[in-house]
Amino acid sequence: MNFINIIEKKRDKGKLSGEEIRDFIKRYTAGEIPDYQVSALLMAIYLNGCDEEETFELTKAMALSGDILDLSSIPGIKVDKHSTGGVGDKVTLIAAPVAAACGIPIAKMSGRGLGFTGGTLDKLESIPGLTVSLTEEEFKSQVRDTGYALIGQTRDLAPADKLLYALRDVTGTVGSIPLIASSIMSKKVAAGSDAIVLEVTYGTGAFMRDEESACELARIMMEIGRQAELKMSAVITDMNEPLGHAIGNSLEVIEAIEALKGNAAEDVAEVMEVILPEMIIAGGKAEDKKEAWELALDAVESGRALEVFRRMIKAQHGDPRVTDDYSLFPKAGTVLKVRADRSGYLSVKDCAGIGECLKILGGGRVTKEQEIDLSVGLEMRKKNGERVSEGDCLLEIYAGSGKDAEAARDKYLASVSINDNKPEKHRLIYRLND
Amino acid sequence: MNFINIIEKKRDKGKLSGEEIRDFIKRYTAGEIPDYQVSALLMAIYLNGCDEEETFELTKAMALSGDILDLSSIPGIKVDKHSTGGVGDKVTLIAAPVAAACGIPIAKMSGRGLGFTGGTLDKLESIPGLTVSLTEEEFKSQVRDTGYALIGQTRDLAPADKLLYALRDVTGTVGSIPLIASSIMSKKVAAGSDAIVLEVTYGTGAFMRDEESACELARIMMEIGRQAELKMSAVITDMNEPLGHAIGNSLEVIEAIEALKGNAAEDVAEVMEVILPEMIIAGGKAEDKKEAWELALDAVESGRALEVFRRMIKAQHGDPRVTDDYSLFPKAGTVLKVRADRSGYLSVKDCAGIGECLKILGGGRVTKEQEIDLSVGLEMRKKNGERVSEGDCLLEIYAGSGKDAEAARDKYLASVSINDNKPEKHRLIYRLND
Repeated sequence: MNFINIIEKKRDKGKLSGEEIRDFIKRYTAGEIPDYQVSALLMAIYLNGCDEEETFELTKAMALSGDILDLSSIPGIKVDKHSTGGVGDKVTLIAAPVAAACGIPIAKMSGRGLGFTGGTLDKLESIPGLTVSLTEEEFKSQVRDTGYALIGQTRDLAPADKLLYALRDVTGTVGSIPLIASSIMSKKVAAGSDAIVLEVTYGTGAFMRDEESACELARIMMEIGRQAELKMSAVITDMNEPLGHAIGNSLEVIEAIEALKGNAAEDVAEVMEVILPEMIIAGGKAEDKKEAWELALDAVESGRALEVFRRMIKAQHGDPRVTDDYSLFPKAGTVLKVRADRSGYLSVKDCAGIGECLKILGGGRVTKEQEIDLSVGLEMRKKNGERVSEGDCLLEIYAGSGKDAEAARDKYLASVSINDNKPEKHRLIYRLND
Repeated sequence: MNFINIIEKKRDKGKLSGEEIRDFIKRYTAGEIPDYQVSALLMAIYLNGCDEEETFELTKAMALSGDILDLSSIPGIKVDKHSTGGVGDKVTLIAAPVAAACGIPIAKMSGRGLGFTGGTLDKLESIPGLTVSLTEEEFKSQVRDTGYALIGQTRDLAPADKLLYALRDVTGTVGSIPLIASSIMSKKVAAGSDAIVLEVTYGTGAFMRDEESACELARIMMEIGRQAELKMSAVITDMNEPLGHAIGNSLEVIEAIEALKGNAAEDVAEVMEVILPEMIIAGGKAEDKKEAWELALDAVESGRALEVFRRMIKAQHGDPRVTDDYSLFPKAGTVLKVRADRSGYLSVKDCAGIGECLKILGGGRVTKEQEIDLSVGLEMRKKNGERVSEGDCLLEIYAGSGKDAEAARDKYLASVSINDNKPEKHRLIYRLND
């Protein structure tokens, strides 16, 4: 099969056959097709799209490019949860131990952050000693024993996706719904859980800029998952402002621990109330949302959710005392308070811009290989729509140097404004109907 | 400047600035931008287009990526002629010496054939001993002394175009009007002539499939040329059947020599009658088409055109006796006659298909590096629309082996049909109005 013909077919808005897609993925993974041909195809896909069948074939081919994890030795319905990412998105950190405390085995593989989005792996690594590198056997036995384990993707999981993702990242072809859907779902299929709850974000702090695109992405991922015989559901969440108060690796873990102690920020609690019932129902532990939410609340109030989190930390060689003593976390030495220069209502104009502050501080990645500083970050003292008075502290910046802190401040101030009128409260969180 | 931003801008249908285009070409020529990023941009340009200003900036940047030939030491208006290529297209071989015989200095740089189109360089190299590699000084002094020289592109002429063309060739991004126009015109601008007559082909044997696209390509090239202060004109020619009778390198040179002797095939003569007046008027040797055509006819009838051709051959170390003794040309040993299996009218369905026969015989290139056999080819004994009787010879195939000849025959038979009804005569040749 001549790969140029495949490029030309997609360029001319044709539909690629399953055989053509399998041939492409197989030969690209084997190093037989040069990047410069694949990037031309990726741009043609970006601009001309793929239908559901092509996207499913692409997902399947990428999933099958490496190992498929077999979790059948773990009893129960394994539930996975995936977020398309956002600024300050610590939902997985909280939802996973709560669901595990409700008796659902959580065998989670996570990714690292890139661009304005953080990654659960980076965040957890701010816990002293904690490792996200377990062998497959260690991973499974930890899930069996403690109900919860969270690791990085193994080298052999969907290697085609790794190659394609790296190429998309440098060729302007990241934000394509079929490419995003197949990338996420190939890893989910390969990761071996039985049910997946998707959290698809939209807004100025997400890859999908509007609600419609988020719904489209969610629907295609649900369809792909169902074709792969997974139980699927999806939640749409607004990411026009950062979630909760903390942005930054150690700071977000601290905020997540507080949530596990029952002290979640209002918006974090709102997301939990939609996500957790989906996970608990998918795991067969409740019949309806009300019952599921009561189970989740009980898991938090009884302290069991926090206990699961502590057991995970311990099993993964971290120091579980962090849950009681936050001074054990790395914390940057320079603190800069940003104050309101006038009175009015705070309005977040550009959520990704606030996410960029973390990159400026060295706590977010610009390139995949970059080492990041887990101790830096932002604490938002005021949220979108809050009334502020001149001189009020809007934000605390934790930085490695005064210069970094000032640069982050400037970026923050360019991303928000204080106005006389209260901005519309637009955060929407809802379950996507099938 | 981050190249990803340039890719994303074109992907999102934005207009690239002159600065962005110059930066792209400069850094790509210097090896500072990887092919996999450039191919994504090429596909975005293929699908989203470029406006006239972008195409002009691209042309200029590519022309300036290398040397600009200075022909000012040659007296007179230097006229160049360019064809977008076609099957059996020997127009340059004939038009250049005729125009030179009318007193117009012809300093021509040509390309090699690729795909179903032949290249003038390959054709001329079938003349024993002839070289197309001259130094710049040899080239110019030959034009001054004999009025005509034809060489391959020097290494330093529009190197950015060489790189881009090679990449387009393997990424399905050849057939884009702004990319074709800038590729051709960057070389023409760098080649230093004062006036250019474009021959833009369309039909089943050309890159442009319809008359409308050919006109669009011609218009944008004329506009680019005028912005670069060149005198421009364009001729649109139909390439739904091969031009003349011969297809193949040595066979086409023989047909061209016959034309210079006044024995041009009817369709070849028709093209000449439109192209040559354009060249002669552009060269300042005639005021109108009638006068110009009379000059051209006189150059042929007097034998001066053939004499210019012979002088060029001699100056470029070839054997000028070939014009009288065709047995000096390499000629393949196996001859297969293809005969009509029924009576009716011959109809050419796929001109490129007939061009493919030459590739099958080893006389056309599949890849740029390939060595080709200059001795093989086809002689069409019947043309589109001709009445044939069962058993008539339609085609003679000159091949290196019986197996090749049979494969070429099968391809030819799949590209034509014999019908009861006479096919419409669709060959159109006309000058494009400004």
